[in-house]
Amino acid sequence: MTTAAPDLAPIGVLVLRGARVESWHRVSYAVADGAGRVRHAAGAYERRIFPRSAVKPLQALALVESGAGHRFGVSAAELALACASHSGEACHIAALTGWLARLGLDQNALACGAHAPLHAPSAERLLVAGQTPTPMHNNCSGKHAGMLTLARHLAAPLAGYHRPDHPVQRQVATTLAEMAGLDALPAPATDGCGVPTFPMSLAQLAGALARLGDPQGLGTRRRAACEQIRAAIRAHPGLVAGTGRACTAIMTAAPELIVKTGAEGVYAAALPRSGIGLALKVEDGAGRAAPVALLALLEALGALPGAARAALAAIARPAIRNHAGEPVGRIEPARGWLDL
Amino acid sequence: MTTAAPDLAPIGVLVLRGARVESWHRVSYAVADGAGRVRHAAGAYERRIFPRSAVKPLQALALVESGAGHRFGVSAAELALACASHSGEACHIAALTGWLARLGLDQNALACGAHAPLHAPSAERLLVAGQTPTPMHNNCSGKHAGMLTLARHLAAPLAGYHRPDHPVQRQVATTLAEMAGLDALPAPATDGCGVPTFPMSLAQLAGALARLGDPQGLGTRRRAACEQIRAAIRAHPGLVAGTGRACTAIMTAAPELIVKTGAEGVYAAALPRSGIGLALKVEDGAGRAAPVALLALLEALGALPGAARAALAAIARPAIRNHAGEPVGRIEPARGWLDL
Repeated sequence: MTTAAPDLAPIGVLVLRGARVESWHRVSYAVADGAGRVRHAAGAYERRIFPRSAVKPLQALALVESGAGHRFGVSAAELALACASHSGEACHIAALTGWLARLGLDQNALACGAHAPLHAPSAERLLVAGQTPTPMHNNCSGKHAGMLTLARHLAAPLAGYHRPDHPVQRQVATTLAEMAGLDALPAPATDGCGVPTFPMSLAQLAGALARLGDPQGLGTRRRAACEQIRAAIRAHPGLVAGTGRACTAIMTAAPELIVKTGAEGVYAAALPRSGIGLALKVEDGAGRAAPVALLALLEALGALPGAARAALAAIARPAIRNHAGEPVGRIEPARGWLDL
Repeated sequence: MTTAAPDLAPIGVLVLRGARVESWHRVSYAVADGAGRVRHAAGAYERRIFPRSAVKPLQALALVESGAGHRFGVSAAELALACASHSGEACHIAALTGWLARLGLDQNALACGAHAPLHAPSAERLLVAGQTPTPMHNNCSGKHAGMLTLARHLAAPLAGYHRPDHPVQRQVATTLAEMAGLDALPAPATDGCGVPTFPMSLAQLAGALARLGDPQGLGTRRRAACEQIRAAIRAHPGLVAGTGRACTAIMTAAPELIVKTGAEGVYAAALPRSGIGLALKVEDGAGRAAPVALLALLEALGALPGAARAALAAIARPAIRNHAGEPVGRIEPARGWLDL
């Protein structure tokens, strides 16, 4: 345990220009086991945060354990896409198109709204072709396809499937609360894609990830669903994020891990071999700091073999280049930040 | 003066999702007069930061007071562009093209490197037209044109005009040190556009802006240069940034102010009527927090008339919308943050 005051997050990530620290990021984190015991923590780890997309693998549980996935023939690739903040590359769009078509649906059924593909070359190709981004390109469209599949299975209306009082969201929320070890979740806010995002603490989120990665203490159906999701992600790390993205790179280099990013500087991970989960939040929400902090934590926990560390060096300590391409700085974990 | 510990910046800006604070930004600031006396300050205001583009109006002084501007017929619009982090819109490119042509130069003389226009529709038009961004579109290209003009005036080589040991950069650094009330500046790092960026404290930067806005205590030549730069910026606030940008909006709504953004969460401002300057830095470098903090400071200092506050409401407290266009949160200054 750190000696930092509970609410003041330690400085976890430094941004250097030349030899001087230009900016820095405070990071709270929790490492917990499947019983919800906090093993390591720092900062405001008991304060509720919005986990955002970091809970997508947990949100996908209802799709599997309800039987909806089996009934509608959801493949491992599609299940990975349901857990994804994908980059809107051709592979993501192709998988999604097939899935929706099998349900007799298209992009008009998706309530997530449109944004340009996160994968810059794909976004540029779209523009050059004179096309407009659609809800298919939204990084959350796979999660929404999963929710539509569940709505079909429940014989619930498709319209409004993203609203908090819809049977789909109620079932997703119940599963999420159980995984986080809670009787119920506090009132949600609205996520960037329109579905509810429920506040929970980093300690609770870490416990939920521990259970997802090592579900042996859970009921038969839940355990099978966790294992199916873990297998799907492991088989398709490229569908969970995309080319050049941290989640894909980390799960490719260290396939025994589940890692999932969320907006506003959130990261969650499961370390199945150790039976632990971790969750972190960058205080200021900076996306550039979250993977640097995650890799520092994973390394400190012994979860990154040497080959993985080498493969991930550019994500662990990204170089900053100016517009002429010269290296002018770097982002790196603060020394002595972690007290594991 | 604030009661916060000197190095721990207070929380100045909140990011809310629904009714809950999701992320927050710590902000250091200093308000100083032309004698360098700190009137108000909080956080790490004596720690050296990189002022980045916030010193562009100060970097432009050498262009004017050397006589280079006069000799090469630099217009008020071009001088505003020399002080700019412009958006790469047609108006910026047109002004820059004419200026470089008058020097017998084109984009190949610019050492700033290329990036896509900050103005998204301009960037998209470029892509759709199958064109690649050039150094002209770099937000710093006007500053670089000014430096090339100064190099011509000094009969110095154009090649390497951006390097710290070039006569242009030495003269710019001398002026900058004098304006900040320093005998000399510490060793620089490299800015995003390749020129040196010199560390200075927020207190020093605030003092330099106070002198720029109210130069009566300075020598005749320096005073005239300050007044010329202030008039150029006031006449062309749209050239200093661009459509929808905070600097342009603030100086349009409150034309007596000079405000200038810098990368990594820096803002500097001159309040000529009060004879003070201010400088702030968001600890984590977040660009989204800097204008919110600036407007809170300007309002607390009585520098924003009611009409200006109304015109700038969307920058002072930006709404956060999800991809379906629904309002899901907002960014706002923390209550009780400022102790002026």
